[in-house]
Amino acid sequence: MTPASIAVIGASRHPAKIGYAVLDNLVRGGFGGRIIPVNPQADELLGLPCARSLQEIEGGVDLALITVPAPAVDNAVQASIDAGVTGIIVVSAGFKETGSAGGALEEKIARLCAEARVRLLGPKSLGVINTRHRMNASFARHMPSTGGISVLTESGAVGTAILDWAAARRLGLAKVIAIGNKADLTEIDFLDHFARDEETKVVIGYLESISSGDEFIRAAEALAAVKPVVIFRAATTQAGGQAAARHTGFKPGADVAYAAAFKRAGVVRAETFEALIDYGTALAMQPLPWGDRVAVITNGGGPGVVTADALEQVGMRLASFSAETSAALKAGLPPQAAAGNPIDLLGDADPGRYARAVELAQQDDAVDAIIAILTPHAMTQAAATARAVAQRAPVDKPMLMVLMGSVDVMPGRAEFVASGIPDYPSPERAVDALRAMREYAAWQARPPRVVTRFPVNRRRVERLLVRQQRTGGLEVGEVRAKEILRAYDFKVPEGLLTTESDLAVEAAEKLGYPVAMKIVSPDIIHKSDAGGVKLSLADAEQIRDFYDLLTLRVMRHAPEARLEGIYVEKMCKRGLEVTIGMRRDPKFGPMLMFGLGGIFVEVLEDVAAGLAPITAEEATQMLKSTRSYELLRGARGQAGVDISAISQGLQRISQLVTDFPQIAEMQINPFIVGPPGQDPMVVDARMMLTEAEA
Amino acid sequence: MTPASIAVIGASRHPAKIGYAVLDNLVRGGFGGRIIPVNPQADELLGLPCARSLQEIEGGVDLALITVPAPAVDNAVQASIDAGVTGIIVVSAGFKETGSAGGALEEKIARLCAEARVRLLGPKSLGVINTRHRMNASFARHMPSTGGISVLTESGAVGTAILDWAAARRLGLAKVIAIGNKADLTEIDFLDHFARDEETKVVIGYLESISSGDEFIRAAEALAAVKPVVIFRAATTQAGGQAAARHTGFKPGADVAYAAAFKRAGVVRAETFEALIDYGTALAMQPLPWGDRVAVITNGGGPGVVTADALEQVGMRLASFSAETSAALKAGLPPQAAAGNPIDLLGDADPGRYARAVELAQQDDAVDAIIAILTPHAMTQAAATARAVAQRAPVDKPMLMVLMGSVDVMPGRAEFVASGIPDYPSPERAVDALRAMREYAAWQARPPRVVTRFPVNRRRVERLLVRQQRTGGLEVGEVRAKEILRAYDFKVPEGLLTTESDLAVEAAEKLGYPVAMKIVSPDIIHKSDAGGVKLSLADAEQIRDFYDLLTLRVMRHAPEARLEGIYVEKMCKRGLEVTIGMRRDPKFGPMLMFGLGGIFVEVLEDVAAGLAPITAEEATQMLKSTRSYELLRGARGQAGVDISAISQGLQRISQLVTDFPQIAEMQINPFIVGPPGQDPMVVDARMMLTEAEA
Repeated sequence: MTPASIAVIGASRHPAKIGYAVLDNLVRGGFGGRIIPVNPQADELLGLPCARSLQEIEGGVDLALITVPAPAVDNAVQASIDAGVTGIIVVSAGFKETGSAGGALEEKIARLCAEARVRLLGPKSLGVINTRHRMNASFARHMPSTGGISVLTESGAVGTAILDWAAARRLGLAKVIAIGNKADLTEIDFLDHFARDEETKVVIGYLESISSGDEFIRAAEALAAVKPVVIFRAATTQAGGQAAARHTGFKPGADVAYAAAFKRAGVVRAETFEALIDYGTALAMQPLPWGDRVAVITNGGGPGVVTADALEQVGMRLASFSAETSAALKAGLPPQAAAGNPIDLLGDADPGRYARAVELAQQDDAVDAIIAILTPHAMTQAAATARAVAQRAPVDKPMLMVLMGSVDVMPGRAEFVASGIPDYPSPERAVDALRAMREYAAWQARPPRVVTRFPVNRRRVERLLVRQQRTGGLEVGEVRAKEILRAYDFKVPEGLLTTESDLAVEAAEKLGYPVAMKIVSPDIIHKSDAGGVKLSLADAEQIRDFYDLLTLRVMRHAPEARLEGIYVEKMCKRGLEVTIGMRRDPKFGPMLMFGLGGIFVEVLEDVAAGLAPITAEEATQMLKSTRSYELLRGARGQAGVDISAISQGLQRISQLVTDFPQIAEMQINPFIVGPPGQDPMVVDARMMLTEAEA
Repeated sequence: MTPASIAVIGASRHPAKIGYAVLDNLVRGGFGGRIIPVNPQADELLGLPCARSLQEIEGGVDLALITVPAPAVDNAVQASIDAGVTGIIVVSAGFKETGSAGGALEEKIARLCAEARVRLLGPKSLGVINTRHRMNASFARHMPSTGGISVLTESGAVGTAILDWAAARRLGLAKVIAIGNKADLTEIDFLDHFARDEETKVVIGYLESISSGDEFIRAAEALAAVKPVVIFRAATTQAGGQAAARHTGFKPGADVAYAAAFKRAGVVRAETFEALIDYGTALAMQPLPWGDRVAVITNGGGPGVVTADALEQVGMRLASFSAETSAALKAGLPPQAAAGNPIDLLGDADPGRYARAVELAQQDDAVDAIIAILTPHAMTQAAATARAVAQRAPVDKPMLMVLMGSVDVMPGRAEFVASGIPDYPSPERAVDALRAMREYAAWQARPPRVVTRFPVNRRRVERLLVRQQRTGGLEVGEVRAKEILRAYDFKVPEGLLTTESDLAVEAAEKLGYPVAMKIVSPDIIHKSDAGGVKLSLADAEQIRDFYDLLTLRVMRHAPEARLEGIYVEKMCKRGLEVTIGMRRDPKFGPMLMFGLGGIFVEVLEDVAAGLAPITAEEATQMLKSTRSYELLRGARGQAGVDISAISQGLQRISQLVTDFPQIAEMQINPFIVGPPGQDPMVVDARMMLTEAEA
């Protein structure tokens, strides 16, 4: 990040070449260290003496910037290593992204670097910019001014767009790092770096993938704990994820896992490219809001309405001013102005009127944040208003400006930026940015994470899983899955496995009527689909009849299936049917899920996800994040159910799948929950083990 | 819209006054007709001879622009009328928006105008701009250049923001009309005007309310039939709407009604202020897409990924190029470029490469629209690229540019705008605009609206409603509601009203077991909540037991309730429980609704709405717009249900509530639908009549 000397391998005199652009950027950026163009055919480039090769350079080189065509990169890397560099940036493209030959080349250069303990950025990296070091080691044209925002990007083009935007807004950046193909250094390394980097106040990132879920969460959480980090992830569709979704009735796509991981780690998620910039700017320039009560100041009624709508839509609200503020507003504004909230200063509002309103909102303890809107009227004085507002701008609560329009309001922008007040082109975008700040503030204020460890019979599950591995294959059927769950203190209806109808009657009489009967076969997982379940049997005659019927059905439906018997189970009390389960995400590991039971889960897409291990607080938040939560609390005369029982069920699953990584997937459906006091019941359950471990 | 002479009443020499701004705008705008400042204290203003009063003016005046303070407006209006004007614009504020005194003043001036048959715009109107007439009769600073976009706005501030934005983008406008408080002229008048106005090619509008739902739909549909109309409605919350929602388990808020009305009328709905401008620009500048297959051309991989994500999220897709296009792309691009879709031209893409890719996408019949993205690199030539692309830009399919960044890409903007190609600052916004174009194109290509009239027994419903009005009050209970529905050919389970247990047994035996029993009381509408329903009764003994039990329960639950008897009903076949119904929206009239049955409707917010009278096609679209549609089609091994039966149910309700406007609200819940061939059944139903008619 702070090399004393940089060699540009492949430096060129042709302005259309990357080797020229990179060298030119270094020179024009004002890099204070030594710049050595390396080109065997030139003596001098851009006024700098050229080296024909790295070996020629006296005193050695810290950083090598490689811009030669892909086939020549491995030689350039080897030469750089031989010359004793500590870091290499490969700007050249033509590697993994072009297919297997390129991939092999990429692996080769990564291996060379690893063996020599030289860190490699790229290939296909836009490069690195360190504004305080005056180093633009990239092929992006702009050297941004110094500031607190650092940029991490997997796409060079997104990086250049951010740079260009920052240049236009005169916004200062700290560091810009394009990680490219991530053959060695990845986003994790730089999240770690930014956490320690005092010049970085906020991190904004564009990612298409992450290298390791666990590492990402660790690094991102450590970073978010000390400064805000905003990430825009391009959410690629995954055919594999969809297939898994169809299987379990769980439709997260990998995107839900990312969302859960971001939430856990305190990463502010940007949904669009513009949001990335909008949120980053707000977080860099303004303090965090302590609450969700917003004062809106405007010189037009319409934009005030739009802001009020937007606030409600994101779950924030208009502040109710104190009596003093209301009185002072009424006294200080023209009679036609609306002194409520939004405060409508009218179209002829002058700078003084804005300043007064901002000041009053600032002083009112019932206000957590301020959004001020300037629309262009014939009398609008944008720059003067900006100066007046900036003078009164609060220091302990965030203030965001909305500049609606263009040439008539933009003269105010430079003044606002200079005063550290971010501006937005519409109310909706300012509100979204404020919401992002609020969520980050709430994450920062979260209670400490305490994962409850329940007393369980872990040894028993170990034995059951070993037995399953020996005899049953990867799919764990209902009976054994329930045994496992019982060892983790889930309540399961009493039941007995029977192998003939007389024994079934005996079992039913022991359990007490009514009972359910279910076929048990390692070859039939979806018992209901096979007609292998019968509920509410009331007497011995029914037991006998259905024993034969179920057996017959299995023979018809799946003649090759091995039938182990019929499970006779006590019917349990009624309640709300929900589903809880877990699926291992390829990146982030065990992901817990919750939804309503039955076919509704998959159709209504009302599923919440959370990463294991989970805390009680997080489990409750999962439930609250669904629309179904209203049902759990009791809606329209229906009694509510024991919400803590579901939360505890999720925590127990969390403990189980953390203890036993060989459980790849599991689902309890239905999990019947009644009113508080009634034990929740696992009515059906199944598991899938991983191939490796099983 | 084209006055020959305009009087400015309240014209002023003080630049901070609206009376100055309006006069100044008229003069600077280059108005060709006569401008007469009216001010009793001045001889001359801005170089124009001043009239002391309207009476002085020789030759009369066409349009009076009133800017005097509110208390003086009624006199100014009367004077204008006396002077023979045909139109009045009241710019002054201080009317309805300030309370009842202002409201009375507003009614007074509206009455004066109506009596004199003079049309009034405002009060609190920003004014009117007609670019081709060179008339800026407003207090907005800018006189936009001439063009095809007309603006209709209920908020002056939103209007000025649009004007300012148009000025910065050098986009031409036709007319700008700020309707203000709508004391006389409303949005309806101007929708009608724009439909006839040849200078207007696209209408963009900001509305907070509409004056009349029926009129709005008629005018908007007529306008949308000839040119696109985009409206951003500030969706204010309505406590009343919420209360109604709680009652029927139907949560539309008025917003759902607006959405349904916009959809019916072909109005493109903008969700945000920026979307209003984004969509309007695209529709004004580009042809409509014929399909949803999009070619994406980019000089950076990341923005291509973002575009692909965004397309999938809005339900559009990446085009699959023809073999010739693919071959030509491969041949014409550098080997590292991605010749698939998105086409990645690489960071060093020159204008020629862009032009070639655009040309190939244009020629390919498998492409319906093109999105091209320009990100800033050291080698990017924005203006030259813009010129090259504009030359090859297709004429018969839409092309939208994304200019990511700022100073490095903006030099291309002027060229694009000049060539009629709209530009967007992010892929997501270009994709949203394209989606809006696609939806409008689909609406334009919709089949003719044919509302089916089913043969029904209308006379019988008339008689039943009269009887209800005489005896039953406003709430129509289950038994009579079912009789009404049967007259409109709904299938209802056979049933008999009984008044003692022996008769109930007799009825059950006639109907055939199993049966349901339900209490009948005009005072108990929510029978289940009162414990007044018992299903699946299998023999005479059960009938006798539950007859007594239900009666007892009613006495306990609602001792004052009048019990008419117990309804014995044949149990109907199983199927999927859905809800269909109708609620009258205060603006748009009868709004049909569909959702899953039971408590899920309200909790899961998966409800579709549509305006009656509805066509078969529209009813089917309603069903398709819900997530539950997957359940109707048959999900996860469950058989699908007879979708046309639900659609027909909606159409029959549509006919019923159109025939009988006294039905204020009705709900069939559950409506049990089975597989095709099985008659759908009305298992429970209720209605509410309007007070006026009932």
